[in-house]
Amino acid sequence: MPALGPRALRILGTGAVRPDEAVTSAAMDERLGLPPGTVEARTGVRVRYVERGSAAELGARAARKALAAAGITLDDVDVIIGASATPDQPLPCNAALLHEELAPARPIAAWDVNASCLSFLVALDLAATLVDAGRHERILIVSSDLASVGLDWSDLGASGIFGDGAAAAVVGHAGETGSAVLAADFATHSEGAHTCEIRGGGSRFAPDRVDGEYADWGRFRMEGGAVFRLAVKHLPPFVDRLLASAGTTMADLPVVVPHQASHHALAWVQHHFGIEEGRLVDIYADHGNQVGASLPSALHAAIESGRLQRGDRALLLGTGAGLSMGGVVLCY
Amino acid sequence: MPALGPRALRILGTGAVRPDEAVTSAAMDERLGLPPGTVEARTGVRVRYVERGSAAELGARAARKALAAAGITLDDVDVIIGASATPDQPLPCNAALLHEELAPARPIAAWDVNASCLSFLVALDLAATLVDAGRHERILIVSSDLASVGLDWSDLGASGIFGDGAAAAVVGHAGETGSAVLAADFATHSEGAHTCEIRGGGSRFAPDRVDGEYADWGRFRMEGGAVFRLAVKHLPPFVDRLLASAGTTMADLPVVVPHQASHHALAWVQHHFGIEEGRLVDIYADHGNQVGASLPSALHAAIESGRLQRGDRALLLGTGAGLSMGGVVLCY
Repeated sequence: MPALGPRALRILGTGAVRPDEAVTSAAMDERLGLPPGTVEARTGVRVRYVERGSAAELGARAARKALAAAGITLDDVDVIIGASATPDQPLPCNAALLHEELAPARPIAAWDVNASCLSFLVALDLAATLVDAGRHERILIVSSDLASVGLDWSDLGASGIFGDGAAAAVVGHAGETGSAVLAADFATHSEGAHTCEIRGGGSRFAPDRVDGEYADWGRFRMEGGAVFRLAVKHLPPFVDRLLASAGTTMADLPVVVPHQASHHALAWVQHHFGIEEGRLVDIYADHGNQVGASLPSALHAAIESGRLQRGDRALLLGTGAGLSMGGVVLCY
Repeated sequence: MPALGPRALRILGTGAVRPDEAVTSAAMDERLGLPPGTVEARTGVRVRYVERGSAAELGARAARKALAAAGITLDDVDVIIGASATPDQPLPCNAALLHEELAPARPIAAWDVNASCLSFLVALDLAATLVDAGRHERILIVSSDLASVGLDWSDLGASGIFGDGAAAAVVGHAGETGSAVLAADFATHSEGAHTCEIRGGGSRFAPDRVDGEYADWGRFRMEGGAVFRLAVKHLPPFVDRLLASAGTTMADLPVVVPHQASHHALAWVQHHFGIEEGRLVDIYADHGNQVGASLPSALHAAIESGRLQRGDRALLLGTGAGLSMGGVVLCY
């Protein structure tokens, strides 16, 4: 990573939505014929939410909240970045379908960034350079994933942890406020490219190319153990370098916003990096892992609850399918 | 678009590949029982190529050529940007699967930009800001699309025009060479979001959500007339603004590299903007429309053939599913 100073960027507003339909772990116990408490004990999730509409509809709801929080309208935005982990359709991109839902009065540019569960962080890092360098003035970033689609509900470990959701942020120039991205870094370890994947739906395993029930090809598959081993091996030195390049330490950060990957992952982050409970933003029990929408939903929760205050430094950190790791240190 | 000066960026090397398997229009005439010459007359394509492997394998071949042309190795690159129109798999992103194919010695960051057929142009515009601002030193951009997967071969107009392909560019800082991106702009008119789409394969029309033969949901569909009407309405004022912001005119540009959308689209661009045949890069007849790989393949052809010389100005221009338009004016 080149030595780069702070990039002036201000998060002007955020918004997050959960779908209306709640699926409690208690209800899953009953449906699966398991003793009460089994699903919550296994997954760490009390309730997750399921969306029956499209990712674009859900994302548009989050976007409208973020715009309202920023006190601007869509037409004040230069670019709509779709930053989800999964496609709404293979073509066109998520941002174009979101653009259709939001129906701006002028033909605002719309394109996607995809870094799986780290898409929002990559978009935020891009936005910091684009705004600081004067390429764009204000950017709307929207993450929306329907994790519930394509889950194998007979495999509790791979299905019970996920929940649908969307979150959005409007970012713009920081002026003299001091808000900035202090450092950001990303690393992909593709020896883990197939530890966490959806195979069918793209060109590699298209319906014409494979045999069998196509729904099976569209199922999310995760080798949890392999993902965890790669993450615990590579994340500590990655975080050390990132914090050093931001000129800070974990102890100096009042807020850490991790990807809400699983209760085991959150517990490991908290323990390994020595983060007291009050500093770690954990919305997992009543959201589940919301894939690409997870990190911005947790960021929104930190802002809305007042835990992240203007002038505070925060670390946003996560891993995603790839297998990739990413982090952004910002001054909110 | 904010008033922004030239952003120093040099295209250090490019590469393009067509798959090994050629499908001539003559062979298609025979297979479809049509009089000789029918498919070529209808599509404008003499030969297109079909890939039986993955988009990542094809993209890796183009990437290695671009790295060789740039005289650098993969480990000199800071980021791999996947810039294709369609997903290899729904998860992880194309760039992670490409990363796996290329197997770099260190965990280079890998993420996608998706703006359908304009993905390469959006990535190039991003790279200009990222490199000029010092966020990254060298970036590898790879576009690879298997257009042949999911085509309805009974509908000649929607299938005969496409071909598989991949192209890549390595970009880096321009130093004192004068190479730069002079201007870039993108606009999405989402009233045309469904004029050009693949519905099945993502969460919106997942196998569990729809009935019928799933291969049908995965077919590419295009309303050619609607796309054409939107493009001819919006493209002229878009191009006027773009050229004005670059401080140039169409007459001053020795090379125009259009998206190779169709022979009708190429003829319209040439005629409407008054571009003499020698200035318009047209590789359509022996490639077809290669979707996201089309624009960088045409750029590579212009460079490899010597038509685009160092110091020349060029306009890269196209439309993509969304419906979006995009253009980049660069000094090569």
